[in-house]
Amino acid sequence: MSFAERRARLAALLAEGGHASLLVTRPVNVRYLTGLASSNAAVIVRADATATLATDSRYIETARGLDGDVRLKETRDVAGDLLEPGAAVEAHHLTVSEYRRLGGGAPLTEGLVEDLRRVKDDAEIAALARACALTDEAFSLVVGQIRAGMTEREIARMLELRMTELGADRPAFETIVASGPNGAVPHHSPGDRPVVEGDLITMDFGALYAGYHADMTRTVALGEPSAWQREIYTLVHDAQAAGRAAVRPGATAAGIDAAARDMIAAAGYGDRFGHGLGHGVGLEIHEEPFLGPGRTGRLEDRVPITVEPGVYLQGLGGVRIEDTLVTRDPLPELLTLTTRELLVL
Amino acid sequence: MSFAERRARLAALLAEGGHASLLVTRPVNVRYLTGLASSNAAVIVRADATATLATDSRYIETARGLDGDVRLKETRDVAGDLLEPGAAVEAHHLTVSEYRRLGGGAPLTEGLVEDLRRVKDDAEIAALARACALTDEAFSLVVGQIRAGMTEREIARMLELRMTELGADRPAFETIVASGPNGAVPHHSPGDRPVVEGDLITMDFGALYAGYHADMTRTVALGEPSAWQREIYTLVHDAQAAGRAAVRPGATAAGIDAAARDMIAAAGYGDRFGHGLGHGVGLEIHEEPFLGPGRTGRLEDRVPITVEPGVYLQGLGGVRIEDTLVTRDPLPELLTLTTRELLVL
Repeated sequence: MSFAERRARLAALLAEGGHASLLVTRPVNVRYLTGLASSNAAVIVRADATATLATDSRYIETARGLDGDVRLKETRDVAGDLLEPGAAVEAHHLTVSEYRRLGGGAPLTEGLVEDLRRVKDDAEIAALARACALTDEAFSLVVGQIRAGMTEREIARMLELRMTELGADRPAFETIVASGPNGAVPHHSPGDRPVVEGDLITMDFGALYAGYHADMTRTVALGEPSAWQREIYTLVHDAQAAGRAAVRPGATAAGIDAAARDMIAAAGYGDRFGHGLGHGVGLEIHEEPFLGPGRTGRLEDRVPITVEPGVYLQGLGGVRIEDTLVTRDPLPELLTLTTRELLVL
Repeated sequence: MSFAERRARLAALLAEGGHASLLVTRPVNVRYLTGLASSNAAVIVRADATATLATDSRYIETARGLDGDVRLKETRDVAGDLLEPGAAVEAHHLTVSEYRRLGGGAPLTEGLVEDLRRVKDDAEIAALARACALTDEAFSLVVGQIRAGMTEREIARMLELRMTELGADRPAFETIVASGPNGAVPHHSPGDRPVVEGDLITMDFGALYAGYHADMTRTVALGEPSAWQREIYTLVHDAQAAGRAAVRPGATAAGIDAAARDMIAAAGYGDRFGHGLGHGVGLEIHEEPFLGPGRTGRLEDRVPITVEPGVYLQGLGGVRIEDTLVTRDPLPELLTLTTRELLVL
């Protein structure tokens, strides 16, 4: 889908909602609608599908190369100089200060562009699939090199170097490597702890490619796993498979979450899985839709989403298994393809 | 300075401004005040210097390890669950939506924590100096490997790989490599253009280390430079030296900018330098203070800042030279140390 088509879809939403125009200030939304990745840009899209993009001198040359259908304005005050009478604003992104600076009277909208962004077009899914392939490949190259005595940080760096060498723009987010007791911390920052025999090692990482974010987690065992390690691994493995199997167009966010969570709760570990089951991925690493107990809404076709249950035992360690997949009818398409069986190193 | 001391300084500001407490929701400010780097955390700091930090289950273990003086609250609704009667909010970060969700009546503040963050303590300057040293070292390793036929993207990747191998957490921002005519685009994204004899090549990059962002730009010549290339290089070189020489405690943001800009304007290139002269660096890559023609305020002692004039000739190319330095009395301390003389490869 071209950027002009994306803007036309937004224009239709605006007309439907009775808005003359929308002043889009959220950078990731500006990028989605125009292709311009900039820390200082805004675009106003009108209900008649015309649009004006504003950015400063640092980005104006890039903007000129993008898209003949958008008018350009070179300015530093990108929001102030684009505001038109009756233009709505993005209340979920505009700060209170900025809103007041713009006069404080603009109609408020919530997540219009984010709604459009949930369902991905072919080019987006292709970029995400490439990001996931780089992630898989980096894992396959690194996992055989993990040895007792390496630190979490070294393993994280190996994963990131491989992804970058293979063609990633950069890591999609800060790589998590959590070993032994650190595995009980879902978002542990990799540190100087050396991995030792008897550890479970959780690696949560992904590649950024053409703006799209891959997200994968695997937990491996260093040395023969103990009984409790095998028990929670098998549990998370099965819950993750159940979660994936529940992903389909029309399924509810809470229902998919429950498919995995109920299995963990039935095994007595319900209170050891304290986060949601997954989230959308795309131009952001965490975006709509979110899967969790209190989440509402249903998945559409062609929505990339993660499924990532975990069990975390404080002081002992943890297991998380995560894939990025895309809703398709009738079965989801897996984008991360690394085995989910327990790898014993 | 400990996190407790930082909070005590904020508490003093709150007492001075008549605020009972401040609900800090901006992630980088939460990190500055508590050490917790999280995408979902908030801290409320009261005028009596007590504080409560809220985060969700993914980060709560990390939060427990941080600081005995802060009370902890585990929740997903970090702002909603911390709000107290009379608490002020960060109007420059809180979105219109979030503000309304919190009830819409909280007193507004602007940039209180950012003001504290301008002046860095010893640990911060040490982290930034290390980030800059990694940046210098990566440049020295890569610059000799640049050959005609390499693409901008390959050069960018070499710089990023070296920084990461040397110990950077990751690149501090998206590396710019702009060659030949692309050098006229200040924030050019490195692409598939191969560098050729006769190019100027601008590299703008830096390492992230312990949360602190280095920022350096060098422009080199591939093959013997032409007359216009030497002319604008010398001009930017001299303007950058003048800008650095103007950096001192008490100097005005506009005055430092003018020291460099006036030299470029006097040479007839004033309209080819369309961005500000520099910006603060720290936990963000762009933070207060900003140096530019319309900027107000004066530099304090111990403020890390960039000085980065450029001249951009559309269709031809450009030159930018940038250092990260710290205001000291009487002379600034350079943190990026790579030579500013024209390197001819």
